[in-house]
Amino acid sequence: MQRVLITGGAGFIGSNLADRLLDRGVEVVVYDNFVTGRPEFIERIRRNGASRVVNADVLDAKSLRSALVGCDTVFHLAANADVRQGLEHPRRDLEQNTLATSTVLEAMRLSGVNRIAFTSTGSVYGEPTVFPTPEHAPFPVQTSLYAASKLAGEGLVQAYCHGYGFTGAIFRLVSTLGERYTHGHVRDFYLALRADPGHLRVLGNGRQEKSYLYIGDLVDGILHGLGALDAGTTEVFNIGTDETIIVDDSVRLICRHVGVDPEIEHTGGPRGWPGDSPVILLDCSKLRSRGWRPEVPIHEAIGRTLSWFDEHVDILIRAEQDT
Amino acid sequence: MQRVLITGGAGFIGSNLADRLLDRGVEVVVYDNFVTGRPEFIERIRRNGASRVVNADVLDAKSLRSALVGCDTVFHLAANADVRQGLEHPRRDLEQNTLATSTVLEAMRLSGVNRIAFTSTGSVYGEPTVFPTPEHAPFPVQTSLYAASKLAGEGLVQAYCHGYGFTGAIFRLVSTLGERYTHGHVRDFYLALRADPGHLRVLGNGRQEKSYLYIGDLVDGILHGLGALDAGTTEVFNIGTDETIIVDDSVRLICRHVGVDPEIEHTGGPRGWPGDSPVILLDCSKLRSRGWRPEVPIHEAIGRTLSWFDEHVDILIRAEQDT
Repeated sequence: MQRVLITGGAGFIGSNLADRLLDRGVEVVVYDNFVTGRPEFIERIRRNGASRVVNADVLDAKSLRSALVGCDTVFHLAANADVRQGLEHPRRDLEQNTLATSTVLEAMRLSGVNRIAFTSTGSVYGEPTVFPTPEHAPFPVQTSLYAASKLAGEGLVQAYCHGYGFTGAIFRLVSTLGERYTHGHVRDFYLALRADPGHLRVLGNGRQEKSYLYIGDLVDGILHGLGALDAGTTEVFNIGTDETIIVDDSVRLICRHVGVDPEIEHTGGPRGWPGDSPVILLDCSKLRSRGWRPEVPIHEAIGRTLSWFDEHVDILIRAEQDT
Repeated sequence: MQRVLITGGAGFIGSNLADRLLDRGVEVVVYDNFVTGRPEFIERIRRNGASRVVNADVLDAKSLRSALVGCDTVFHLAANADVRQGLEHPRRDLEQNTLATSTVLEAMRLSGVNRIAFTSTGSVYGEPTVFPTPEHAPFPVQTSLYAASKLAGEGLVQAYCHGYGFTGAIFRLVSTLGERYTHGHVRDFYLALRADPGHLRVLGNGRQEKSYLYIGDLVDGILHGLGALDAGTTEVFNIGTDETIIVDDSVRLICRHVGVDPEIEHTGGPRGWPGDSPVILLDCSKLRSRGWRPEVPIHEAIGRTLSWFDEHVDILIRAEQDT
């Protein structure tokens, strides 16, 4: 890799990936519409003479093509990540995840750029029957518009690899935590407890069992997986940890960190919202067999996230106000 | 079912389904843009006082909503069916299959219609490793834009079922033959042999092994599958025959019917085109367990198709001129 474009490059995952690539001497084009991306996250990119920031939308084919000049690889991370609101805005996932992925692939094809890493989600397994869930799990049924839109994106990447000779690594992610994490339940609980230390509302019965990956391990895994591909091939990699934590236990860690002992109200039921997966635990042995291994356990990933919140609560609050 | 809307209702499958529903006393709204649909196929609908024909596109949300008034069920069959041209028009499958399915589902949701049958394709299995291929085969890799766009449609239907309480039957079809078949290799070979009886060009090595279903059996299967669903659930059904035929053998049947003995030229390779599946054989035991059984063997389905061509070659030629 000499020069790469990162869609969503000012976001949580994108900006961490951008910094890692800068460390490796890669030139980075951060492509972001700054709806959820944060200018604070890409200060290193702005200061790097060989890199640049493009403020534009992934549905803007013309800007994409112009930004792709000189690039050899695209990390397509931009997405609607507001998983829980899908049913209130039924076209949003389709547009920002499926159509946007098509637009990125077409811009790449027309620009002669044919190497892509795409971040999908472990939610494409719906409600799996096999745990830990491997990439070749039984053909699943989709349970959310978010996962359906990501699965559609996977299919597009694969079809471009088969039809046009692209090289494509698809990553099915669990939730990720760490520095610059600005949305999701750890943030929600943290801000809620600061606002009302005596009471906390938890979606579902609190027994949902989830795997969380530390951002540094995720970035490592994406670079490992893409690097392991032969030109013109496509592969799907699960990427997560081998451990899980139940929501109530992560709530306990957060309460202890904040120093509060609130009354916990559960909204009830095995799912936090329609389409939520009660258990997420991915079999990541395929990516591990390529030499990757997550280093940070879940409790530590939560701890680092909370410490980052303490130091950057201003960013958290600005991020909330902007969206 | 009292009143149903069939997208693509003037096409090969749609018009046969429409006629069957008329026989059962169901009111039918044929919704078709007549790009590949044929006015000749819906004469019975036009004569039926309780049914109607709407000449509009599935991407036209307003026309869809107006056509849906009074309907209780949608058979969403409209699609780009030109499977082989995907790579030349990379947005066509996305627009006509994925976006159109989203538009249909949204129009249904806003109109309070929540029962849908959706025709997908056995091609979503990509290049399967298990034959016959069951619905719960290992999570496949997409090999064509057509199949990717249909898989995206499946995901949307399933997400609407989970999120909004829709009832949805998804059918993964093999190729279908029979009366009103106006595109695909049997038609191509038939017209080519009429034009040049001495020579026939066959895509691939002629050893591709395919399963073909007779249109009457397909219509039966769709009605069986949808009828077997409990309200608010979603199911995927493979729908095909238990036998296969290799392309060269179907060529032989066609040559014998036409009464010619041409020189056969194979373009070579295991696939007829990029994304073609060398073998398609679906495990249809799930739909059979609901009481459905195909009656017409492949050679007979080919024979009926050829007899229909003989009697309607004018329609075949008009269909070719119009597209």
